[in-house]
Amino acid sequence: MPASIQKRPISPSWGEIAKKAQDHRDASIALLDPPLPEIAELPLNSTPVPKTILTAEEVAITEADPVGLVSQLASGTLTSVQVTEAFLRRAGLAQKLTNCVTELLPVASLERATYLDSYIKEHGKPIGPLHGLPISVKEHIGMKGLTLNAGFIAWHDRTADQNALILDILYAAGAVFYVRTTQPQTLMHLETSSNFYGETVNPFNRTLTSGGSSGGEGAIIGMRGSCLGIGTDIGGSIRSPAANNGVYGLRPTSYRLPLSGLSATMLGQEQIVPVIGPLSTSLGGVKLFMKTLIDAQPWLQEPSLLPFPWKTASQIPTDASGNKTLKIAVLYDDGVVRPHPPVLRALKTVAEKLARVQGVQVTEWKPYKHAEAWTIISSLYFCDGGKEESEAIEASGEPWRPLSKFIIKENENVKRHSVREVWDWTVKREEYRTEYARLWGDVDVILCPVGPGAAPPLNCARYWGYTAQWNLLDYPALIAPITKVDPEIDLADTSYKPRNPKDAYNHDLYSPEKYANAPVSLQLVGRRYEDEKVVEAMEYMMEKVGAPFTEFV
Amino acid sequence: MPASIQKRPISPSWGEIAKKAQDHRDASIALLDPPLPEIAELPLNSTPVPKTILTAEEVAITEADPVGLVSQLASGTLTSVQVTEAFLRRAGLAQKLTNCVTELLPVASLERATYLDSYIKEHGKPIGPLHGLPISVKEHIGMKGLTLNAGFIAWHDRTADQNALILDILYAAGAVFYVRTTQPQTLMHLETSSNFYGETVNPFNRTLTSGGSSGGEGAIIGMRGSCLGIGTDIGGSIRSPAANNGVYGLRPTSYRLPLSGLSATMLGQEQIVPVIGPLSTSLGGVKLFMKTLIDAQPWLQEPSLLPFPWKTASQIPTDASGNKTLKIAVLYDDGVVRPHPPVLRALKTVAEKLARVQGVQVTEWKPYKHAEAWTIISSLYFCDGGKEESEAIEASGEPWRPLSKFIIKENENVKRHSVREVWDWTVKREEYRTEYARLWGDVDVILCPVGPGAAPPLNCARYWGYTAQWNLLDYPALIAPITKVDPEIDLADTSYKPRNPKDAYNHDLYSPEKYANAPVSLQLVGRRYEDEKVVEAMEYMMEKVGAPFTEFV
Repeated sequence: MPASIQKRPISPSWGEIAKKAQDHRDASIALLDPPLPEIAELPLNSTPVPKTILTAEEVAITEADPVGLVSQLASGTLTSVQVTEAFLRRAGLAQKLTNCVTELLPVASLERATYLDSYIKEHGKPIGPLHGLPISVKEHIGMKGLTLNAGFIAWHDRTADQNALILDILYAAGAVFYVRTTQPQTLMHLETSSNFYGETVNPFNRTLTSGGSSGGEGAIIGMRGSCLGIGTDIGGSIRSPAANNGVYGLRPTSYRLPLSGLSATMLGQEQIVPVIGPLSTSLGGVKLFMKTLIDAQPWLQEPSLLPFPWKTASQIPTDASGNKTLKIAVLYDDGVVRPHPPVLRALKTVAEKLARVQGVQVTEWKPYKHAEAWTIISSLYFCDGGKEESEAIEASGEPWRPLSKFIIKENENVKRHSVREVWDWTVKREEYRTEYARLWGDVDVILCPVGPGAAPPLNCARYWGYTAQWNLLDYPALIAPITKVDPEIDLADTSYKPRNPKDAYNHDLYSPEKYANAPVSLQLVGRRYEDEKVVEAMEYMMEKVGAPFTEFV
Repeated sequence: MPASIQKRPISPSWGEIAKKAQDHRDASIALLDPPLPEIAELPLNSTPVPKTILTAEEVAITEADPVGLVSQLASGTLTSVQVTEAFLRRAGLAQKLTNCVTELLPVASLERATYLDSYIKEHGKPIGPLHGLPISVKEHIGMKGLTLNAGFIAWHDRTADQNALILDILYAAGAVFYVRTTQPQTLMHLETSSNFYGETVNPFNRTLTSGGSSGGEGAIIGMRGSCLGIGTDIGGSIRSPAANNGVYGLRPTSYRLPLSGLSATMLGQEQIVPVIGPLSTSLGGVKLFMKTLIDAQPWLQEPSLLPFPWKTASQIPTDASGNKTLKIAVLYDDGVVRPHPPVLRALKTVAEKLARVQGVQVTEWKPYKHAEAWTIISSLYFCDGGKEESEAIEASGEPWRPLSKFIIKENENVKRHSVREVWDWTVKREEYRTEYARLWGDVDVILCPVGPGAAPPLNCARYWGYTAQWNLLDYPALIAPITKVDPEIDLADTSYKPRNPKDAYNHDLYSPEKYANAPVSLQLVGRRYEDEKVVEAMEYMMEKVGAPFTEFV
C-alpha cells in the first residue's frame, strides 16, 4: 500500500469527533432551565458543591433513597417531573464537577415524566414498580437513536436501532431515562478515561479516579446526580466505581439480567461472561432493580437467561430457635497484592464487630491460587490477541489511553489463541472453579477488599485481582461503602516488604495524604447464583455493625 | 520426516487392539454362571430371543418398570443380587444379539449387590432412592480403573482415575453398575459403529441401526438387558437410540446434570454444550434418574451446574376450574427433509387423538429456518476443523468409519475457525435462539419427529436436523415409543418430489419392507429449562391417547 494511502488524514480527525461529542453534551446541559452556574474553580472534593447550588427540595429529592422515591411517586406525594428535574440538575452539576456525563436527555425525560404524571392521575395507580424513577445509563447500553460508541472514536457514528432489552423492561416498569454516562476506551479499564471526554474524576478527591469501566455511573451516583444506574462488569467494572464513589453496586451471577443490545468488542465471547447490574445509593435500590427485572421474566425474550425468580424469602440459615446464623469468611489479602492500610482497617473493624454479633461466625478465608486465577482470566479476555480493540482504536487515529495499552499491549497473557487453546484455557477455568467451589464448605459469604486500596490516582488502577477473581468464578459480588481514608489513622506501612512487582507498585502508590477522603468500601461474595443471599447478608451485616461508619453526602 | 518413520507400523496394530477389546468383553460375559448359550443363527428380530433362554423370574425382573424394581428392592421383595444377576444375563444376551456391550462387570456388580442386600438387612432401610438398581453406562463416562476410549483405538489405554461425578452420585443413591456399552468412533454419529466392535444393530431388525451415539444403551434397553442407562447427547445421541429401540430418552437442558469425568474430543468447547441424560424403559425411570441426581445438589461439586431443584409440583397450566390445559404444537416436517410415512402416521394419529382430549389444544408448528439452524450448529461442532478427531483416529492407523468421514470430512461447514469466527457463529446462534424463543407465544410443548424416519439401514443416518435443532436451541427434548413400522399401512409415497439432495437421499432410503417392525417414536420439546414440564406433558399425552399403540417386548 503506498504511503500516501496508509497515512491519509482521517476526516474528521479524532479530535474533531471528540470536540463534537463534548459540544453535544454541553448543549444538552445548556437546555436546563434555569441554567446551571459555571463552576469557576473546581474543588478537590466536589461532594459539598450541589447543596450550595440546588434548592432544598432538589437536595432532598436527590438524596432520598430510591425505594422511598418510588413510594412517594406511587402515592403522588412527588411528581415524576419534580423528581426528574431535580436529578437532571444535579446530574448536570456532577458533569461539571467530575466529567461523568455523555449527554443529558432533558427533553425526552421530561416528556416521559409528564406522561407518567398524567398516567397516575388518570388511572389512580402507578404504571409499574419503578413509576417515575429516573435511572442513569452507561453509554454502551443501547438507547434507540442515540450513540453507541463503547469508548471508541471510530465507532462515534454508531447508533442503536432499538433499546437494549434491559431498558425496555425498566421503561415498562416506569423508569425515566434522563442521563447517559461515561466509559473508558475499550471498556476494559478500572478507570474511566477516553479520547472523547478525557478522565472522569472522583467526587471526593479529583486527583483520584472514579473507577471504571462504569466510572460515569460511579461518579454521578457518588455525586447524587443519580440514585440508581446501570453498569456492566467483566472484571470489576461495576464494583470498582461503586467502591471508589461510596455507593452500592452488584455484579450479579451471569445470565440473570438481560445483556442484549449492548455495544462492545468481543461479542460472542462466552468464556468470561460480561454482566449488567445496578449501582445505587442504597441496597434497597439494588434489590428494586434486580426484582423488577427478574419479575419481568426476561428469559422469555433473551433465552440465554436463567428462569430463576428473584427470591424474596430469607436465604440466611437459621438455628434451631429460628435465629439467623451466618458464617462469614474474611479474605484480608489475596496473597498477591496486599491491600493498603485503610482497606485492612475497614476489614478488621467490620470483622471485629461481626464477631460480637450473636449467630455470626467469623473465620479467615485463605486465598486459593489467586495469581493463577488472574492468569486464567486474562488469558481468556482477549483471545484474538486484542485484535478487535486494536483495530477499533487505530481506525480513527485516536491514541491508546495508558490503561488500554496496559491491559492489552503490556499484558503478557494476551495472545492470539487458536480455538484449541481457548478450549484448553476453558478447561483450566472450569478446573479452577471446581476446586474453589469444593473449598467453600459451610461458609455463607466471603468478605473481602474490592481492590488493593481506595480509589487510586488517575491511571494507576493496574491490579484487577480483587474483582476479576469473582468474574472468573462467576460469583455474585456486592459492594457497600464502609468508611473513608483518614490520614490521621491510615498511616503507610513503611516496614512492608513487597512480594512481587505488582505488590511493590501498589505499595508505592500509597500515601495517606494522596488518598485523603477517598471512600473505602468492602465486597461481599457468595456462591454462584446466590445473589439474593449476598444482598440479604450485606444488609444484615451493615445493620448489625452499624456501617457505614461515616457519611458520604 | 523420512518415509520410514512416517509409515512405521504401529504395534500393536489397531486390529490387534480391537481384538483384545472384544476378547476382554467376551471373557467378561463368559464369567456368567450358568453360562449363556451361543446363538448359532442370529434372527432378524432379536427381541423374542431372551424369553426363550431366561427363567421366568429373570424375564419378569428385567421387564419390570425401574420404579417398581426400586420399590421391591427397598421393601426386600427382591434382592439386589437377584435383580443384578437377571440383568447381567439379559445384558449378555443383548450383546450376543445386537453387539451393544463393551464389558460386563459381573464381579464388581455382584459384590456391590451383595453389600446392598446386607445393608438393607442390617439397617432395615434402603441406602438411597436407587437402592440395588442395576444401571448401564456408556463407555466414555469414566468408571474408575476402566477404559475410557470414547471410540478411538488410539485411546485404548486411557483409563479413568476416578468415577465421573454422575456415577458417584448414582452410586451413593444405591445404583449397581454392571455393564458398559458401545459408542461410535468420534462419538459423533447417529449410529454406533467403531473399529473396536463393529456395528451395534437394532434389536427389532438387525439390518437397521440401533442409533447413536448412545446406541449401546439404546440396544441394551430395547432388549431389556437394562431398564435404565446413561447416555450423552450433543446432536441427538440420547434421542436417536431411544427412538430406534422403542424406549424413553431425555436430553435435558444443559447444565442440569453433572458432566465431569467424561472422555471426548473438544473438551472445553462450550458453544454447543453436550449433555448427559437417561434412557429407560419407562418415563418413571427418566424421572427417578433426574430427581435423584438433582436432589443430590451436584452444583456444589460441579459449579457449572444450575441450582434448580427437580420440580415435582405440576408444571402444566390449568383453567379456572383447575383442569389441565395444554397447547401442543405439532411440527410434521422441518421443511428440509420430509419424514417417512410411518413417522407422519404416528404424528397424525397422536395429533388427532390429542385434539379430542378435553383441555388440549393442538396447533401446527411452522418450522423456522431449520436449514439455517443446521448450518449454525454444524459450524460450531468442530471449530478446529476436526483436527482433534482426525488426530485421534489417525494416531492408531484405524480406518475412518463411514459416518465419521461423513460428519467431519464431507461436511461443508467443518472449517478451522479463528477465535473471531467462533464468536461470530456464537452471535448467530444466540440471534437464532432469540428469534425462536420469541416465536413460542403460549405454546406449551412441540410434538415432532425424532428423525426423518424410523431406524435407518446401517450407515445411512445422515440427517441430524430433527434432533440437533434442539441442541442448538438447548431445549429439553424427550422421546417416547409410539408404534412400529407396518409395511401394510406405511406405503412409500411414490408421488413425492424431493426438495433437495438431503431430502432425496432420505426419500430414497424408504421402503416399507426394509424398515419393517422398526419402532416409531416421537419427540416432545419444551422451552429451555422446562425439563419437568416436558416429562409431565409426555406422561399426560401418552395416557390420554393410549400410547404406545403396540407392545415392544
